[in-house]
Amino acid sequence: MSDPETSNTPAGRFGKFGLIEHITRETVIYNKSTVTGKGDDSAVIDSGNELTLVSTDLLLEGIHFNLVYTPLKHLGYKAVIRAISDIYAMNGTPEQILIAVGISTRFKVEHLEELYEGIGLACKRYRTDLAGGDTTSSLTGMTIGVTAIGRAGRDSIVRRNGARPNDLICATGSFGASYMGLQVLERERKIYDKDNPVQPDLSGYEYIIERQLKPEFPEKVLKDLAAGNILPTSMIDVSDGLASDLIHLCRLSDTGCRIYHDRIPVDNETWKSAEEFNIDPMIPALNGGEDYELLFTLPLEHAEKIKTIPDVALIGHMTGKEQGCFLVTGEGNEVELRAQGWEKE
Amino acid sequence: MSDPETSNTPAGRFGKFGLIEHITRETVIYNKSTVTGKGDDSAVIDSGNELTLVSTDLLLEGIHFNLVYTPLKHLGYKAVIRAISDIYAMNGTPEQILIAVGISTRFKVEHLEELYEGIGLACKRYRTDLAGGDTTSSLTGMTIGVTAIGRAGRDSIVRRNGARPNDLICATGSFGASYMGLQVLERERKIYDKDNPVQPDLSGYEYIIERQLKPEFPEKVLKDLAAGNILPTSMIDVSDGLASDLIHLCRLSDTGCRIYHDRIPVDNETWKSAEEFNIDPMIPALNGGEDYELLFTLPLEHAEKIKTIPDVALIGHMTGKEQGCFLVTGEGNEVELRAQGWEKE
Repeated sequence: MSDPETSNTPAGRFGKFGLIEHITRETVIYNKSTVTGKGDDSAVIDSGNELTLVSTDLLLEGIHFNLVYTPLKHLGYKAVIRAISDIYAMNGTPEQILIAVGISTRFKVEHLEELYEGIGLACKRYRTDLAGGDTTSSLTGMTIGVTAIGRAGRDSIVRRNGARPNDLICATGSFGASYMGLQVLERERKIYDKDNPVQPDLSGYEYIIERQLKPEFPEKVLKDLAAGNILPTSMIDVSDGLASDLIHLCRLSDTGCRIYHDRIPVDNETWKSAEEFNIDPMIPALNGGEDYELLFTLPLEHAEKIKTIPDVALIGHMTGKEQGCFLVTGEGNEVELRAQGWEKE
Repeated sequence: MSDPETSNTPAGRFGKFGLIEHITRETVIYNKSTVTGKGDDSAVIDSGNELTLVSTDLLLEGIHFNLVYTPLKHLGYKAVIRAISDIYAMNGTPEQILIAVGISTRFKVEHLEELYEGIGLACKRYRTDLAGGDTTSSLTGMTIGVTAIGRAGRDSIVRRNGARPNDLICATGSFGASYMGLQVLERERKIYDKDNPVQPDLSGYEYIIERQLKPEFPEKVLKDLAAGNILPTSMIDVSDGLASDLIHLCRLSDTGCRIYHDRIPVDNETWKSAEEFNIDPMIPALNGGEDYELLFTLPLEHAEKIKTIPDVALIGHMTGKEQGCFLVTGEGNEVELRAQGWEKE
């Protein structure tokens, strides 16, 4: 190990995206099949006629999931969604996943069966094949590694770095729901701990809890865009949070952005529960994360056409880089966007 | 979670390979690009002219590595070897890897830099590109997920299930060294704990410690086989242990086997250190694991030709399934081979 005297730069200092860039800055490429190195949702590999996309993710107990309120079946389902969303976010089609699971002795075969039941359901829903995997022992808790593989056309692949000033910024679905679902689950868990026989009361929170426990991916929007001959200039799946992922698009595309408070889609249930927790609903919407929605940019000429695609909101536009990344409030004030993805974890 | 009353089947009951088979027995395949489902070293994906191979692995602190005696640079190197060996074992060429790392706050940027330095060295040595990855927080310790991607020709890919009775069983390098290296490191660690200022004395154990900390993969053997027009009928990389991985080849190929005690390659240093620890050297050789050697089978007609390939030992032959899997001792006694890979972990 390095000299502890000098080993004191906290990993959080660079921010999540900056850290990977910093550490891999000297990476050399040896194979001509390696099209994209780093920074995008997936690795891009030239496999002849088409491009192969590969992404990988780690899910750690206590960080990415809590088994007190996450049924293993839901966890399996969500692990698949998380992985395939990286393939979809490059306008690719996921076709295979590989799952590696590390489990301690407290887990039995029946637990793994439940986990794999959820994996199987998500695979069926998204026509993706479980093509391999492994199990291994762990000292404590459960660790899940998910690798997703997909394909994309040479002319239809969408990267993170193609946005231009004046491009429209579009978002699917709604934001902040998953984060508020987690807050409700956490609250009920605490009540349950103190006063054992009380059953958690989750009625009125069904949507946000489902968004937390069993999210879906808006893959239909990609089909609608393709059918309408609309090719985004850049795209990312929102897993870290709308603000963080938008800033990342801007940084890679060398742009700034303006998004409008009133246009950011937030579900009523998210709004109500945020108020109940005395949280400004814009905080989970911008920084909550785990939304598994798509954020993409389009040339201005698609402004009318995009309104015909269901489930897509036009939330702002790209600007020159020097104009920075800002949220415009209802009163017309500009608030700088901040990435809170890494710190949040 | 399932009813705890019925959730009591220990995951070890099925053995490592059986567990995955059991859990994924109902897997459905939706995409025609998915060539091989489960059971092999890597997933096989049809990408047009060639086949794409993808494998994934989890490395968990305390299970797969101990940072007390594993320098992070070595750990990074070994993580790459472990991943690419699954691609080589199908007679493929690794071209990309993706690394996902989970770290707790005790790790600093300098630690990650060391880890990635090792990753970079292995990538250079094996001409493999670091094509993506991620870092995430963990509650405790370090978790590494490695995905390797490679390619194989339609006519040259080698699976685990192609061995036939009478095929020759060949093995590269030597066995048991990594396991004995680990024993020496563990012993020195315990001495160090009790009596602080004593420096570990590792002289005379250099080979076995290097096999444990910084293994290499015998990829040259694959090139020599190709140059000699020798195509194995089945192949596996020995990570769980010679016995366990040979039994797995037999099970998938529907064969039995006989291997000969006197022919199993064991290095002198492995032999000497095993005797020092009062262990029969055949135990680490058969069940030690982490050898990262190749085990493969050949049609009988290659018997003379294979002797010209450096670093390959002919250790036995396949038999009919009904004859079981046995080690033949120097005295001609037959001892049944047992898979101890899963229990060992």
